Amino acid sequence: MNYLNQSIEALIKEKTACIAQLEKLTEKGLSLDLSRGKPSKLQLEISMEMLDTLNHTSDFIAENGQDCRNYGGIDGIPEAKRMLADMMDTAPDHVLVGGNSSLTLMYQIISHAMIHGICGSKPWSQVENRKFLCPVPGYDRHFTMVDHFGFELIPVPMLEDGPDMDMVQALVENDESIKGIWCVPKYQNPTGIVFSDEVVKRFAALTPKAEDFRIFWDNAYCVHAFEGENADLLDIIGACEEAGNPDMVYEFCSTSKITFPGSGISAVACSNANLADIKGFLKFATIGPDKMNQLMHARYFQNGKGIRCHMKKHAAVMAPKFTAAYRVLEEMLGDCGIAHWTYAKGGYFFSYVTLQGCATRIVSMCREYGVKFTPAGATHPYGVDPSDCHIRIAPSFAGMEEITMAVGVLALCTKIVSIEKVLESGNYVVA
Amino acid sequence: MNYLNQSIEALIKEKTACIAQLEKLTEKGLSLDLSRGKPSKLQLEISMEMLDTLNHTSDFIAENGQDCRNYGGIDGIPEAKRMLADMMDTAPDHVLVGGNSSLTLMYQIISHAMIHGICGSKPWSQVENRKFLCPVPGYDRHFTMVDHFGFELIPVPMLEDGPDMDMVQALVENDESIKGIWCVPKYQNPTGIVFSDEVVKRFAALTPKAEDFRIFWDNAYCVHAFEGENADLLDIIGACEEAGNPDMVYEFCSTSKITFPGSGISAVACSNANLADIKGFLKFATIGPDKMNQLMHARYFQNGKGIRCHMKKHAAVMAPKFTAAYRVLEEMLGDCGIAHWTYAKGGYFFSYVTLQGCATRIVSMCREYGVKFTPAGATHPYGVDPSDCHIRIAPSFAGMEEITMAVGVLALCTKIVSIEKVLESGNYVVA
Repeated sequence: MNYLNQSIEALIKEKTACIAQLEKLTEKGLSLDLSRGKPSKLQLEISMEMLDTLNHTSDFIAENGQDCRNYGGIDGIPEAKRMLADMMDTAPDHVLVGGNSSLTLMYQIISHAMIHGICGSKPWSQVENRKFLCPVPGYDRHFTMVDHFGFELIPVPMLEDGPDMDMVQALVENDESIKGIWCVPKYQNPTGIVFSDEVVKRFAALTPKAEDFRIFWDNAYCVHAFEGENADLLDIIGACEEAGNPDMVYEFCSTSKITFPGSGISAVACSNANLADIKGFLKFATIGPDKMNQLMHARYFQNGKGIRCHMKKHAAVMAPKFTAAYRVLEEMLGDCGIAHWTYAKGGYFFSYVTLQGCATRIVSMCREYGVKFTPAGATHPYGVDPSDCHIRIAPSFAGMEEITMAVGVLALCTKIVSIEKVLESGNYVVA
Repeated sequence: MNYLNQSIEALIKEKTACIAQLEKLTEKGLSLDLSRGKPSKLQLEISMEMLDTLNHTSDFIAENGQDCRNYGGIDGIPEAKRMLADMMDTAPDHVLVGGNSSLTLMYQIISHAMIHGICGSKPWSQVENRKFLCPVPGYDRHFTMVDHFGFELIPVPMLEDGPDMDMVQALVENDESIKGIWCVPKYQNPTGIVFSDEVVKRFAALTPKAEDFRIFWDNAYCVHAFEGENADLLDIIGACEEAGNPDMVYEFCSTSKITFPGSGISAVACSNANLADIKGFLKFATIGPDKMNQLMHARYFQNGKGIRCHMKKHAAVMAPKFTAAYRVLEEMLGDCGIAHWTYAKGGYFFSYVTLQGCATRIVSMCREYGVKFTPAGATHPYGVDPSDCHIRIAPSFAGMEEITMAVGVLALCTKIVSIEKVLESGNYVVA
C-alpha cells in the first residue's frame, strides 16, 4: 500500500492498525540502542588472542633495533607503518603511526593549523569566516570538531559515488576561506557508499584557492567489507601526487574497529612536507606513541593481508545484522513510498531517509517506545538536517533479535508519523 | 688542590697531568651517553610481569561495569583514577586519567588555552607579550613547549627549597601577561630538590594579576625516591583549595618511569572547574584514553601502595648509580673549588655547576672524548644559560662502570677547562 496515494479513511485506518501493532511489539517494554557505531561483545572476542602476543617472556625489539618498551621516536615503528600503509594502500614512508585515536590526529592537526597554520601558512584562527566543507549526511564528530574551532560548516550533498564534486570544486576553487573537507571515502558514515575513481580523481585535481586547503580523508573503514573482497578505492595520496597536488590530503585510519575500540593504533598518511609539518609540532606534544601496542598489533597481524583475513571474522558478525535490518524494512516498508535506505557493503552504518519533516518525530517516537537511534540531524552540520529526513542506523552493537525488533519499531513509527504528515499536508486522495 | 689559588706554573703542570689522565682513561675509545633521563634495560625488566596481568582469558570489566575493550568515557576508569590520585596524594574526583604521555596533557591544555582560553578566558594567542615563568635550571621540554606557543620565557632561579618565591610573587601579581609557571616539585629536573611546605604554601597563596594564571605542577617523580620513604611534598591542590585558589593549579603525573616509558598511563589532577574545561575540549579531541592499559596498570599495582613498593626495585637500580657518580666527583673535584653539584634523593637527575663560562666547553670536550652529556644551556630558556655553568647529569641509562668512566671524563674535562679559564682570566696567584 503506497501511503502517498490513499484516501483519508484508508490512512486513518492504517494508522490505527500500525499503533496496535506497535503496542503489541513493545508490550513487554523495550530498551534497545542502535545509535552508536560500537562493535558488539562478540566482535571484541575476535581479537582476544592478540593479547597473548606479548608477555613477560617476549622480546620487544622492533625491526629497527629499538626497544619498544623505552622512549624513542615520534612516528611509530617500521613494522606498524608498513602494516597500516598496506591497509590504506599507500607506501610506508607516507605514514606516521600515532596513539589510540585517529580522531586525536585530526584534532591535533587542526589545532596546529589554528595556532601555527599548515606548513607555515597563516594561522587558521586568524582567517575570518573560515569554512569547512561537510558532505551530508556525514559523521557528527567531524562536524562538531571544526565547529568547536570556529569554522562555518558548509554542507555538500553526498551523491551515490561521493560528494557532489561540481559543488565542491566550485566552492573550493573560489573561496580562500575554505580550508578543508571531511571525507569518509569507503563505506561512508552513514551511507555506506564508496567513492568512485572519478570522484577521487576529481578530488586530486582540485586547484583550491587556499594553498593550505586540505582533504581530511578518514579511511576509517578501509578493510571493513561485509562480504568478499573489500571494495576498490583509488589511492588518494597517489592520485594527488599524480595531479601535482601531493600536499593536499591527509589520510587517516585506525584499528579501533579491527581490534579494540579505544585501545588500538592509528595512523596518518600524507606527503613528506605534511609529515615534516606534523612532526614539527608532535615533538612538542608527546614523548611518542605507545610502541608496545604498535608492536603487539604488528606481530599479531604481520601485514595488511593478516588484517584483511581477520576482518572476515568481523564481517561474519556484521553482515547478518545489516541483512536482518534490510529484510524488516523491505517487508514492512517496501511498497509504502515513505522511506528508502542505502545498502551498505561494509562499514558500520546505513542511511535511512524518510519523508521530509518526519525524521525527528520518528526518532522521538521510537525512543518513547524504548528504541534509541542517533538523533535526527546528527548527520548534518550543527545537528540540523534542513529537510529533516535523515536517520543514521547503527546495527553493530545490538544482537540479531534486538535489531529485528528495533527496526520493526522504526518501520511502524515511520508509518505512523508519515500518515500524520500526509494528513497534515493534505496530500491524500479524496475518496 | 684548590685551582683558584695556584701559581701559573702549578696550573699548567696540573693541566698537563689532567690531559695525560684523560688520554689514558679514554685510550680504548669511549661511547657513553649520560644525556637523557631514560630508564635502563634493567629497569624495564622490573615491570615485565605486568604484561601477564591481562591475556585472552581475562575479563575486562572495570569497577564501574564498563567493558574496557570498547568505546566509552574520556576521563579514565575508576580504579586508575584512584591509584594515580593516591600516588599524587590527592582525591580521585580531582583526577582525569589520560593516555601514554603527561606531556601530551600539558600540550593539549596549553593548546586549548591558546585557541579558547582557560575556563572561558581570553585566548592566550590573543595575549600580546604573553609570558611563562621558567624556574632554572629546569626541564627543557617544558620550556620549548611554551616557546613553541610564542610565550616569552622568564627565568626564575631555583633555590634550595624551590623557585625564588619572592620573585615569582612579584612577577605574577603585577603582570597580567604572565599565564603560567612550570614546576617539577619533587626531585626536580635537574636539581633533584624537593619543594618545601613553605614554597608550596606561597604558591597556593599567590594572587595573580591574570585570572587565568596556572601553575603547571609536573609531579613526574612523585614516587621516585632512592632510599627509604618518599620525601614529603605538600599537596598543592589541597593547599590551593585552602587558600581560596582552587582553580590555579594543574598537577600531572605518569607511569612512564614506573612501568614502560611511552607505554604508560598519565593523569592530570585539578579542580572541578578545570576538569570541566578539559573535558569540554577532550570530547572533541579523542574517542577516549586506552582503558585496557589503564586496567592493566590498575590490576597489577592495585593502589598507590603497590606502586610505592614497586618503586623500591627501581631505587635499588638507580641509587647506586648516583652514589657512584658522586663518589667520583668527590674524589676528583672535592677540594678543587671549580665545581659543585646537587645531591638528589630521588628522580632522574642531578645538577652539576661549573665555574662561570665553562659549561659549554666542558660538555663539548667530553663529547670529543666520547662522552655525551645534555647540552649546556638545555636547562635554561631558549637553551641559553647566561652564566654558562649548568650541566644536567642523567646517570639512569648507563651501567655502573660506564657512569664511573663518564663522570671521570667530566671531572677531568672540568679541570682542564677550568684551568684554561683561570689562566685566561688572570685569576691565578703570581709565583
